[in-house]
Amino acid sequence: MKSKKKKKSYKTINRSPGTIQYRGKKQSAVTVVEIINYSKEYYHKIETQKVEDAFHLKGNDKVTWINVNGLNNTSEIEKLGNHYGLHPLTLEDILNTNHRPKMDEFDHYLFLVMKMLYFKNEDELVYEQVSMVVGEDYVLTFQEADGDVFDDLRERISAGKGRGRSMGSDYLMYAIMDAVVDNYLTVIEAFGDKIEDIENRIFDSETENDQTANTIQTLKREVLKIRRSVFPLREVINRLEKIEHPIIDDKTRNFLRDLYDHIVHVNESIEVYREMVWSLLDMYMTIISNKMNEVMKVLTIIATIFIPLTFIAGIYGMNFDHMPELHHKYGYFILWGLMLFIFFMMLLFFRRKKWL
Amino acid sequence: MKSKKKKKSYKTINRSPGTIQYRGKKQSAVTVVEIINYSKEYYHKIETQKVEDAFHLKGNDKVTWINVNGLNNTSEIEKLGNHYGLHPLTLEDILNTNHRPKMDEFDHYLFLVMKMLYFKNEDELVYEQVSMVVGEDYVLTFQEADGDVFDDLRERISAGKGRGRSMGSDYLMYAIMDAVVDNYLTVIEAFGDKIEDIENRIFDSETENDQTANTIQTLKREVLKIRRSVFPLREVINRLEKIEHPIIDDKTRNFLRDLYDHIVHVNESIEVYREMVWSLLDMYMTIISNKMNEVMKVLTIIATIFIPLTFIAGIYGMNFDHMPELHHKYGYFILWGLMLFIFFMMLLFFRRKKWL
Amino acid sequence: MKSKKKKKSYKTINRSPGTIQYRGKKQSAVTVVEIINYSKEYYHKIETQKVEDAFHLKGNDKVTWINVNGLNNTSEIEKLGNHYGLHPLTLEDILNTNHRPKMDEFDHYLFLVMKMLYFKNEDELVYEQVSMVVGEDYVLTFQEADGDVFDDLRERISAGKGRGRSMGSDYLMYAIMDAVVDNYLTVIEAFGDKIEDIENRIFDSETENDQTANTIQTLKREVLKIRRSVFPLREVINRLEKIEHPIIDDKTRNFLRDLYDHIVHVNESIEVYREMVWSLLDMYMTIISNKMNEVMKVLTIIATIFIPLTFIAGIYGMNFDHMPELHHKYGYFILWGLMLFIFFMMLLFFRRKKWL
Amino acid sequence: MKSKKKKKSYKTINRSPGTIQYRGKKQSAVTVVEIINYSKEYYHKIETQKVEDAFHLKGNDKVTWINVNGLNNTSEIEKLGNHYGLHPLTLEDILNTNHRPKMDEFDHYLFLVMKMLYFKNEDELVYEQVSMVVGEDYVLTFQEADGDVFDDLRERISAGKGRGRSMGSDYLMYAIMDAVVDNYLTVIEAFGDKIEDIENRIFDSETENDQTANTIQTLKREVLKIRRSVFPLREVINRLEKIEHPIIDDKTRNFLRDLYDHIVHVNESIEVYREMVWSLLDMYMTIISNKMNEVMKVLTIIATIFIPLTFIAGIYGMNFDHMPELHHKYGYFILWGLMLFIFFMMLLFFRRKKWL
Amino acid sequence: MKSKKKKKSYKTINRSPGTIQYRGKKQSAVTVVEIINYSKEYYHKIETQKVEDAFHLKGNDKVTWINVNGLNNTSEIEKLGNHYGLHPLTLEDILNTNHRPKMDEFDHYLFLVMKMLYFKNEDELVYEQVSMVVGEDYVLTFQEADGDVFDDLRERISAGKGRGRSMGSDYLMYAIMDAVVDNYLTVIEAFGDKIEDIENRIFDSETENDQTANTIQTLKREVLKIRRSVFPLREVINRLEKIEHPIIDDKTRNFLRDLYDHIVHVNESIEVYREMVWSLLDMYMTIISNKMNEVMKVLTIIATIFIPLTFIAGIYGMNFDHMPELHHKYGYFILWGLMLFIFFMMLLFFRRKKWL
Repeated sequence: MKSKKKKKSYKTINRSPGTIQYRGKKQSAVTVVEIINYSKEYYHKIETQKVEDAFHLKGNDKVTWINVNGLNNTSEIEKLGNHYGLHPLTLEDILNTNHRPKMDEFDHYLFLVMKMLYFKNEDELVYEQVSMVVGEDYVLTFQEADGDVFDDLRERISAGKGRGRSMGSDYLMYAIMDAVVDNYLTVIEAFGDKIEDIENRIFDSETENDQTANTIQTLKREVLKIRRSVFPLREVINRLEKIEHPIIDDKTRNFLRDLYDHIVHVNESIEVYREMVWSLLDMYMTIISNKMNEVMKVLTIIATIFIPLTFIAGIYGMNFDHMPELHHKYGYFILWGLMLFIFFMMLLFFRRKKWL
Repeated sequence: MKSKKKKKSYKTINRSPGTIQYRGKKQSAVTVVEIINYSKEYYHKIETQKVEDAFHLKGNDKVTWINVNGLNNTSEIEKLGNHYGLHPLTLEDILNTNHRPKMDEFDHYLFLVMKMLYFKNEDELVYEQVSMVVGEDYVLTFQEADGDVFDDLRERISAGKGRGRSMGSDYLMYAIMDAVVDNYLTVIEAFGDKIEDIENRIFDSETENDQTANTIQTLKREVLKIRRSVFPLREVINRLEKIEHPIIDDKTRNFLRDLYDHIVHVNESIEVYREMVWSLLDMYMTIISNKMNEVMKVLTIIATIFIPLTFIAGIYGMNFDHMPELHHKYGYFILWGLMLFIFFMMLLFFRRKKWL
Repeated sequence: MKSKKKKKSYKTINRSPGTIQYRGKKQSAVTVVEIINYSKEYYHKIETQKVEDAFHLKGNDKVTWINVNGLNNTSEIEKLGNHYGLHPLTLEDILNTNHRPKMDEFDHYLFLVMKMLYFKNEDELVYEQVSMVVGEDYVLTFQEADGDVFDDLRERISAGKGRGRSMGSDYLMYAIMDAVVDNYLTVIEAFGDKIEDIENRIFDSETENDQTANTIQTLKREVLKIRRSVFPLREVINRLEKIEHPIIDDKTRNFLRDLYDHIVHVNESIEVYREMVWSLLDMYMTIISNKMNEVMKVLTIIATIFIPLTFIAGIYGMNFDHMPELHHKYGYFILWGLMLFIFFMMLLFFRRKKWL
Repeated sequence: MKSKKKKKSYKTINRSPGTIQYRGKKQSAVTVVEIINYSKEYYHKIETQKVEDAFHLKGNDKVTWINVNGLNNTSEIEKLGNHYGLHPLTLEDILNTNHRPKMDEFDHYLFLVMKMLYFKNEDELVYEQVSMVVGEDYVLTFQEADGDVFDDLRERISAGKGRGRSMGSDYLMYAIMDAVVDNYLTVIEAFGDKIEDIENRIFDSETENDQTANTIQTLKREVLKIRRSVFPLREVINRLEKIEHPIIDDKTRNFLRDLYDHIVHVNESIEVYREMVWSLLDMYMTIISNKMNEVMKVLTIIATIFIPLTFIAGIYGMNFDHMPELHHKYGYFILWGLMLFIFFMMLLFFRRKKWL
Repeated sequence: MKSKKKKKSYKTINRSPGTIQYRGKKQSAVTVVEIINYSKEYYHKIETQKVEDAFHLKGNDKVTWINVNGLNNTSEIEKLGNHYGLHPLTLEDILNTNHRPKMDEFDHYLFLVMKMLYFKNEDELVYEQVSMVVGEDYVLTFQEADGDVFDDLRERISAGKGRGRSMGSDYLMYAIMDAVVDNYLTVIEAFGDKIEDIENRIFDSETENDQTANTIQTLKREVLKIRRSVFPLREVINRLEKIEHPIIDDKTRNFLRDLYDHIVHVNESIEVYREMVWSLLDMYMTIISNKMNEVMKVLTIIATIFIPLTFIAGIYGMNFDHMPELHHKYGYFILWGLMLFIFFMMLLFFRRKKWL
């Protein structure tokens, strides 16, 4: 599945750099544009499919958030890009959903790429790229598909709760990133629960099979993928907090520093879970060895007791003409006594070895 | 248990950033405020539930230490925060007990977060967040619950021992951090004893079972958690020693440097124990293999000796009409001789292999 | 194979430093020189074997790309080097194909070495060194052999598509590097598919044999070799983006920054695959252990059931004169009952142990 | 043992910081003070128990080395500290023998802590803390107990050999540190011999048992402890070489640089031995597996040969009325032929499998 | 062997620092001094045992290379040192052959220590320390014993090939280092071949024994030793390229940069081989497990088939008076049929398990 997707996304990699072309998952859904325009007292929201509907909002004294869902309609996105004067490389990066998180500074805007992680249908982990262009009084966000982690944010803006409405586009940028980073925690904790689940399953497991090894390998893959999607954001936020750019207000820096603490916390959690996953296989191996040891002991005890006794029985099953013991009156009963004696000696030996 | 707690603490993560709301363990205990006011000659201490009792102390020429136990009563904490002019993010961080250790500098105060580790009921390791606001002549500390590691410090202040009473709020800050860091050592050494315990149990163990692997995995988890709680404090103390801030007096820097040496010592100890824990599983595995090897040898010796002898007995148990050996007068006794010869040859072979 | 090649390439290592001599794979092919001369409106391309054909192009106001395929003809390369005023060490480095990626700055040109990775005949991975000299209005590239990853680039230049034709030699340098780096991704993804293949083979494998271990070891070798060829390029591109050199135009820097993001992405992918390969052997080992455990269980179940029963049968095969049970009317049938009882007890025991 | 000691040394950790109190091993020995006073032409040495005997030497134009053996007599040490104007934290650090190596700069003296490692009674490795105060014309050293590595140094000073007598207190400091570092090498090489010993024992071992795993674990512990005691000294010496302090003469810097090379060499050796110890357990495990494999082969060969043969013998031991083979004249001998044939086929099979 | 040597070399470590005394392998060979004096047009070479023969060459306008083979004759070396004004520590370092690679800057000369690695008698790897003193117009080299890697260099100088003869002492220094570093590559590749050899032996091995584990451990030791000898040289060359020193001419810097690329390449190769060696043991272990698994399967198949059949034969070997089957006319043949049926069922079972 995964490798299929990748191949597709890279089959056009030798195109001229800077060519505007969508390089992500092909979606059937049409591109939907959501436009939110607000100031401290004002709030207006429309949903449309034509980006032109947002053009008249540029340069009024309100903050405009244009959220583009779906990247298929490249011509609309190009129009939007031209209207806001975006660099060709920015447009290319928006459409190529195979980017690692990064930030590019341009004279009149900042460009950010990050990965949004969330669960769809309970336990399907979605990795969706969110690109963001932050200008003086507008924020453009581009998502690959429907569904995101911004519903709380939208609600707060529409309800005018919190300090969001009275601050500029840089605070909106912060709030969007905060929503993304907060959701990392949810995802990582779900991941942590999964690890604990598997740990418990390993310890209690009735039948161990290759399934477990397979699951552990999948977890490894998953944690490496999460790490790759999340780690570079730390550096991005760190630079955001430090740069001198007219768009970033000093009041917002405190919030960015707080966000930085969050992402560091997230990254440390990922590292901890990574170490736990890595040691799972070792632990599983130890438990297999333990079980094998137990199996071996049962075999050894049974075999060690009965093989010598069977030998003795074999002796007296021989058909030699002259075997004096066979004709002894109590021969049979004496033999039973001997065999019981050997049996109990063996038990004693195993108990001394602490196998029983 | 752990994952339950976490889920709770994060279920409100999508709230507006800066919202003041308690995100820690729900405690039934009421919030208790302990106020200590002292100078070189003066000492006064009260316990109350209303933070207003401390308001008149601000700005007198004494040092005020306000210790808040329990973070449920958010309105009291907010009142305190407003009185001392704390930033909204500071208040939010105080109430969110899921923070990693950090320091934020503000114009008129320093804000520190650290984790206090101590044992409750002998062997239950408690991780409790301590937030600290250090101003010109006051220190505010916020703890999640009752019980802390500051009793010696309280006693020293009340008794006027040491140099504490004659120095400022920055020295009090140092003394609080010193108490926390000193207790890390106690905790880490108890942890070291636990590792040695398990090592010994592994070497002496009568019966090995999955319990041991489980215990080792728990230790791994624990050491990673301790590390996460403690490591970032090193950077905090390092920055504390270096920053230029009106609150930090030059005389206090020597003490902070000393504290830095302590925390480095603590971190190195944690790393050493981490390496020991990590190699425990390998060692355990080796010992299992060793035991399995021993089991295998017993089985092999017994089987290798008796299986051929049983075969020989089987031969002479056959019912062929013409088997000359059976009718030989000493056939039976010659056979016994042959079997004893084989038996001793086998013993010799095992001794040469050094299995016996 | 590999070690053979290396030995050859190093058998002349004790020559005077700076001696111009080819130190790569000996190729039978003649050296082919491809000359592309272009400006925004103009395009001309010739293929020749004499480098003199390019000499008249120097200093006209167009960009000249001279691509030398095959490094056997050292005298031609030396002539070219002298014409463009290259340092003796540059010439030596061009001919020694055992270099790691690097960049040297000279007064009037930049010298770059990188490794081009591509697949020949579907699945043979070729490592070919590409050296590049970038001057004011020319780019010289030197390849070890026929076949490269620049066909798309050639086509774009000849067709005049993209922005390539209107920019200088530094953009051509960027476009060449971009083609090389883009192809890394193709190679790495093919590598990732190979890893997944082997993973699946391990889990499904009908017969496990040393072949698998061998394949894993080969993968390790391969990933280390790719890493060595690719990693240093990151530092090269980083320095390229930063240096102040008359040849690098400011407009090109944006593209170099984008290229830097690409190579970081490539390096991270390599690291991820490296970790996956490293854990493959552990996983394989676990699966072997699992299978061994299963084998042991079958043996133990069969042996544990039948060895005691065989012993009982042996008892009543003895030829003692006085064995009362033998003469009991239902002795035989009672014995069968006993043996069936033991049999089912054993089954119960194994089920309790969860072996069945 | 170790954990006992530690507990003791930390049971007073909650005292007021800066309190002067001995926190090391309780020793019965009295504190002995050794005073050496020398210049180029002059040499005088006394041993006493009262530090006052050294007070008159301060400020004469000779170098004074006061070596305090045993830290029990805290009052004497405090007197000495007051006489030389030491900071309270310095005194506290001298008495707390649980410090990591460090250097503190004060206005008129340098304070150094290091660990002295040497063998007592042939093979007992002693970790002893040496604190050193280096002033303008004096060096104070504090040791936990009798016995040190300075005998050669004392002899050189008394004999006036080398350049020691004509240089200042900073050179004496260097000479003391050089003696400590040189002895690290002796200890580390003894450790290396021990590792080789165990390696050889593993390869030659007649009987493997848990003892070996235990020894390896002890080695791990030991190498980690040595590393902790020695590593930080590198940074200390590096800083010593770099700092601008009136006590450090430029002529001494060359010697300190040389000492730095030594400690780097020591640290690299420790790292190498650490890697060797870490891979010992893996190697031991491999050898156990190898032996187990050999045991299994013996069992398998014997069982595989004789179990089928025993079955055949069992067949002809049955008591059916109609078994034609039994009555064949040469039946018995034909059967022997068949069994020998099977036997040799088996041998051939094992040889093909390369088990024999 | 190795540990013996070390012990000797360190038995004098407690001497006064700066004492001139040889601390290397005791050699019977006399010290041989080789003096090469050259300029662009002039070349003269003598071999002698008295260093005085070189004294008249100091300060003429030619480059003098004095190569001392063997460090036994400390008085001659001291004379040389005094003549060229070397620092006592330099002389001490020349004679102590246990140094790690390093560079010391002095006012009028540079002092370098490096390790020369080469093969003697085909496959004995020699580690020989080369110390080098580089002054304005002279280079002194000191080797422990006969045999080095400079023959090509000597020849080039005597023949006047390359640019060597027309450049100064700094270029000679570079050429000597280049010879040493080039030879590292030869050694490392031989090492790589050895690793591949062992890999192949592991995969093809007819009989595995502890020998292989031992060889792998020796390889580990070896690669660690090579690393230690070679790695620090990278830093030395890096500093050489950067320092401002009258002896280093700007023209030589290009060559040093090239040398730096070489040593980085060498170090990366060592790291790659190190990783390969480290994973050899894991691979070996996997192969042992694989073989054990195969052995177990053979045992299990044979035992599982024949043990039940033997039990059945045992049943009908019993001597009960009433066993109806025994008297059935076709009883024997029906039993054979039953046993064959069981036999084929078992085969089917094993094929389903994919053991056959």
